[in-house]
Amino acid sequence: MNKVVFRMHCPDRSGIVHFVSGLIAKKLGGNISSTQELIVTNGGEGKLAREFFMRVAWETRRGADRDEVAAFFERNLKSYKAVFSVVDADRRDRLALFATREAHCLIEVLAAHYQEILPAEIPLIISNREHEKVVNLARMFNVNFCYVPYDSGMGAKEKKQALKKQTDLLRDYEIDVVGLARYMQIIPPGMIDKYPHRIINIHHSFLPAFVGARPYHQAYERGVKKIGATAHFVTARLDEGPIIEQDTEDVVDQSTVENYIEIGRGIEKRVFLGALRKYLERKLVVHGNKVIVFT
Amino acid sequence: MNKVVFRMHCPDRSGIVHFVSGLIAKKLGGNISSTQELIVTNGGEGKLAREFFMRVAWETRRGADRDEVAAFFERNLKSYKAVFSVVDADRRDRLALFATREAHCLIEVLAAHYQEILPAEIPLIISNREHEKVVNLARMFNVNFCYVPYDSGMGAKEKKQALKKQTDLLRDYEIDVVGLARYMQIIPPGMIDKYPHRIINIHHSFLPAFVGARPYHQAYERGVKKIGATAHFVTARLDEGPIIEQDTEDVVDQSTVENYIEIGRGIEKRVFLGALRKYLERKLVVHGNKVIVFT
Amino acid sequence: MNKVVFRMHCPDRSGIVHFVSGLIAKKLGGNISSTQELIVTNGGEGKLAREFFMRVAWETRRGADRDEVAAFFERNLKSYKAVFSVVDADRRDRLALFATREAHCLIEVLAAHYQEILPAEIPLIISNREHEKVVNLARMFNVNFCYVPYDSGMGAKEKKQALKKQTDLLRDYEIDVVGLARYMQIIPPGMIDKYPHRIINIHHSFLPAFVGARPYHQAYERGVKKIGATAHFVTARLDEGPIIEQDTEDVVDQSTVENYIEIGRGIEKRVFLGALRKYLERKLVVHGNKVIVFT
Amino acid sequence: MNKVVFRMHCPDRSGIVHFVSGLIAKKLGGNISSTQELIVTNGGEGKLAREFFMRVAWETRRGADRDEVAAFFERNLKSYKAVFSVVDADRRDRLALFATREAHCLIEVLAAHYQEILPAEIPLIISNREHEKVVNLARMFNVNFCYVPYDSGMGAKEKKQALKKQTDLLRDYEIDVVGLARYMQIIPPGMIDKYPHRIINIHHSFLPAFVGARPYHQAYERGVKKIGATAHFVTARLDEGPIIEQDTEDVVDQSTVENYIEIGRGIEKRVFLGALRKYLERKLVVHGNKVIVFT
Repeated sequence: MNKVVFRMHCPDRSGIVHFVSGLIAKKLGGNISSTQELIVTNGGEGKLAREFFMRVAWETRRGADRDEVAAFFERNLKSYKAVFSVVDADRRDRLALFATREAHCLIEVLAAHYQEILPAEIPLIISNREHEKVVNLARMFNVNFCYVPYDSGMGAKEKKQALKKQTDLLRDYEIDVVGLARYMQIIPPGMIDKYPHRIINIHHSFLPAFVGARPYHQAYERGVKKIGATAHFVTARLDEGPIIEQDTEDVVDQSTVENYIEIGRGIEKRVFLGALRKYLERKLVVHGNKVIVFT
Repeated sequence: MNKVVFRMHCPDRSGIVHFVSGLIAKKLGGNISSTQELIVTNGGEGKLAREFFMRVAWETRRGADRDEVAAFFERNLKSYKAVFSVVDADRRDRLALFATREAHCLIEVLAAHYQEILPAEIPLIISNREHEKVVNLARMFNVNFCYVPYDSGMGAKEKKQALKKQTDLLRDYEIDVVGLARYMQIIPPGMIDKYPHRIINIHHSFLPAFVGARPYHQAYERGVKKIGATAHFVTARLDEGPIIEQDTEDVVDQSTVENYIEIGRGIEKRVFLGALRKYLERKLVVHGNKVIVFT
Repeated sequence: MNKVVFRMHCPDRSGIVHFVSGLIAKKLGGNISSTQELIVTNGGEGKLAREFFMRVAWETRRGADRDEVAAFFERNLKSYKAVFSVVDADRRDRLALFATREAHCLIEVLAAHYQEILPAEIPLIISNREHEKVVNLARMFNVNFCYVPYDSGMGAKEKKQALKKQTDLLRDYEIDVVGLARYMQIIPPGMIDKYPHRIINIHHSFLPAFVGARPYHQAYERGVKKIGATAHFVTARLDEGPIIEQDTEDVVDQSTVENYIEIGRGIEKRVFLGALRKYLERKLVVHGNKVIVFT
Repeated sequence: MNKVVFRMHCPDRSGIVHFVSGLIAKKLGGNISSTQELIVTNGGEGKLAREFFMRVAWETRRGADRDEVAAFFERNLKSYKAVFSVVDADRRDRLALFATREAHCLIEVLAAHYQEILPAEIPLIISNREHEKVVNLARMFNVNFCYVPYDSGMGAKEKKQALKKQTDLLRDYEIDVVGLARYMQIIPPGMIDKYPHRIINIHHSFLPAFVGARPYHQAYERGVKKIGATAHFVTARLDEGPIIEQDTEDVVDQSTVENYIEIGRGIEKRVFLGALRKYLERKLVVHGNKVIVFT
């Protein structure tokens, strides 16, 4: 491991930057190429807690073992009550995409990957339908397409079997992270637990507005002047997971809900790709129900 | 009345543009300077209703009476089931501003008025506090400041008296439209009924997200990546009136709720002024719970 | 021809809207589905000229011939000195794309077409290189790829032959409009004359800033805080043709020119696609060196 | 001096962050509240130069003298070839505003100051005209207004006298930084030399597009689809000084140049205030012809 990305957070305390940069430069022989710090204040009046976040990337000629480096920080950061991760920056995550019928988020990610601006391997697309547009995309971009029927109307046993098939596929393809590219089904806890903060969904509204079904129709009825999309980690609570990225656009033409949907698709695909990229470039840290984004 | 703004809407039907432009040009001798049409589709599958909206501005040498012109359209548009309004474009509305303690929305509107880009008279500021920053602004910009104590903790009788004092002031100053410039009290039905779709509030969130109190704190807790503001007409249902204008901005720095509040103030004042301007320039039509905005 | 798009402009004059809408509704039996007007003021003080622009879309049961409809307007609009066009709204233009080595604009257009949001046929990609990424895209999206070597260093004779080959291809494939998807060569007058206001280029700067070569490097040297892209019609004067669409984005990270280039690619592809769409949806009118855009 | 802002830059070198944070924490007893680093790469292929920029803010109980702290860094950073500045974060700069006739940039800055979001003293407005709107603003916001006639048509001697009067005023009012709030005259080298990188101008175009006079008219003629504004430091070369902040907005209505001017005013005042704020909050570092902006 010659290129390392290190992310940590801990209760704020004087001298951390100096201490950690010293560990890396002096003890690990790292040549720091970028470092970013951030302090987030939580809690109400009188009992403010300041949490310190840091991301450091470095290069080193001493090719160290990932576990060794992790153990090194474990020892040295114990008194800081730090939560941290050590990643081999040269290793690309393996991404699986789930889809149902809409192709716009899928094609955005595949096209970015084709242009080599998404640092990932994409070996697998899973869909609960066999829509031609989706199936063809997989073929065009040379990704394995696996059809796993799944439907809210299915029985518990069938659902369980489908879930098993899905998680078996994720395991067999050695998937690190899952992107739900407008997959129209609820992910069961059994899968969420296996991929904590590693399943990213795109919701077609500016959360927390318009939770649940048909958000563009809700937005149209309410007469909002901007619509949006939200990429978030999937947790057990629907549409309430930590938010990674959001964007909005003006509703230029309020005449039909179809206009909302079409503008919305442009936002969705941009936000979905943006969130995946930040994840894959190791820019994210989840803390409680918030995502800290390094730039 | 030599300059007229005419707004109408009715169920869509072939030939309306031709018919109405004929009425104005041929019967009223109007030289049309701008015309805009829009069709809005409502309702679910199978029972779509298309509503036609139109705004026409014209000049004429025949100085006609407003009531005459209104009666003329009343007669001619009867079979169209049209709802319409006729306004003397040379007459400026009289605007009252309500404030409590924050000055940013107030100063934005007063500064725009000072620069002559807000077509209104502003004779009156009402506040339920006597904050120095607010009182001074009234003096600096030469607007009457009236202190009417009002508080959610007040008794019903006191509230009633305060409401009477407020509505008396609005009547005495011949106010046409009210702008709530971060006025921190709920407007009672008694006033809303007297000024239907003529009280404009600025809510400090991207509605319908974060209804109610302390929206920036709610937004901070939820970890959203953009915050927003919403200008809407006040109706009996809190924060649910027809939306006039909204905007959002990136949360660049997620470190404290104070950052949210500060960025938010910039959005609030811009959105509040934008909504007031569009109202005063007669660009708005309310239809159900939606506002149609002409450009 | 049952669905028609009609665009016209002429010196402004009272009563045009009424007159033209009457022609369409009464004489042509058209059921107008959308109409938009715009007046543009040109010239300096004292000699202002107001030009009126109009776009009308209608449906009719009387399937009329395009030439007949054009002749009808020719007769009726003679005294208005109108310039107009009549288009069969059901007919899709045939689009050819020119590329060299960068794939981002190409893939954006092909992906939009795949999702059926670009009303065109795309039968042909011409490139002066055989870059793998470009060649593969043509194959993936099932578009004919034609390699026509062309280089600024080539002799006049060779260039002429290449130009002939290109224009022959455009003719054989019955191409209506050409999109230069980061094609790195100057288009010779011989081709521009054959496709007046029908060749659309994407320039990687916010014109008129940074004309010519390596605009991102120019922008980086100048230290601008936003970068942009411009889609314009190609005319004989390099980078000076009528501008169709532009956009800009913040330079978040000023650390290297590569950051500028990467952000810029995102803007380029969006602006290029936007301009092509507006062209193909018949939303553009060229007047002098300006493009009027209907919404 | 208990609160310090320190900005530095030097050729990039391994270990700087660790070294500088150590100096501050260990030698100066500083409790670092924020730190930001940035590396900017300059020069063409083969001879890249990486410049390291850093901004650190800290608090300390040992109230040190500014000169002492500066001397301390002078000694310790010698071998780094660093350029640096040490500022007392509790001291507010004194800002003078120059205006001519337009009030929008002036009122934006005065209103921000009134709301206590601009960390400066504003004791002085200088104008080469006595326009009522400008004179009144000074009175309303309780700022001294000094009328110093100046005109491009004036003789050299008169100009020299006016310049002397201006620089005398700046000296007498102990001005640190000058904001040109749409001041319509060229600043002579005699003043620029006295306030190097301390005079901030707002130019009403997205530079380098539309240098010089009447940029909105130029933009209108060219038919651009967005217009912009640029805040920059004034140098001897007109409109070519280091750019601090820029923004652009869509031209929604291309019908008259007046629309461009009005939209533009909204951009100008926002960009001008933004640039002043960043300067006054000590977020800027000038390097060559670029401004590095810390967030």
